[in-house]
Amino acid sequence: MKARVHVTLKPGVLDPQGRAVHHALDGLGFADAVADVRVGKLIELELADGTPAEAIDEMCRRLLANTVIENYRVELP
Amino acid sequence: MKARVHVTLKPGVLDPQGRAVHHALDGLGFADAVADVRVGKLIELELADGTPAEAIDEMCRRLLANTVIENYRVELP
Repeated sequence: MKARVHVTLKPGVLDPQGRAVHHALDGLGFADAVADVRVGKLIELELADGTPAEAIDEMCRRLLANTVIENYRVELP
Repeated sequence: MKARVHVTLKPGVLDPQGRAVHHALDGLGFADAVADVRVGKLIELELADGTPAEAIDEMCRRLLANTVIENYRVELP
């Protein structure tokens, strides 16, 4: 089975990478179109069938996301 | 409006970051559960209302994704 984990910075946490991307998009002529950019991570896990949701949640809390500054969301397709 | 861009490495492209995460999950006791890990990017764009899909696609091709080694997918919620 596959699981997709979306890791995003919490609102209010400074995102220098997103700012750099925003600046670059401005430079490419998209200044009017783009108001804000945030860059997060997308982690695709190939898991053994029947892996419980709690185990995936534990992976997120212990390794994949830094819950002090990041939110995570698990998507099971 | 918001748009979410998922950028993932193409199949076959080496993913050292994913490999490191996989190794770390093994070390945390998830060796039996995890078969593979791939790490991509999740870019959240806050756009002016009415930004055409073609413009978002152009942003992806010109800046957000390296189409030689990465695939991208735009999600408009």
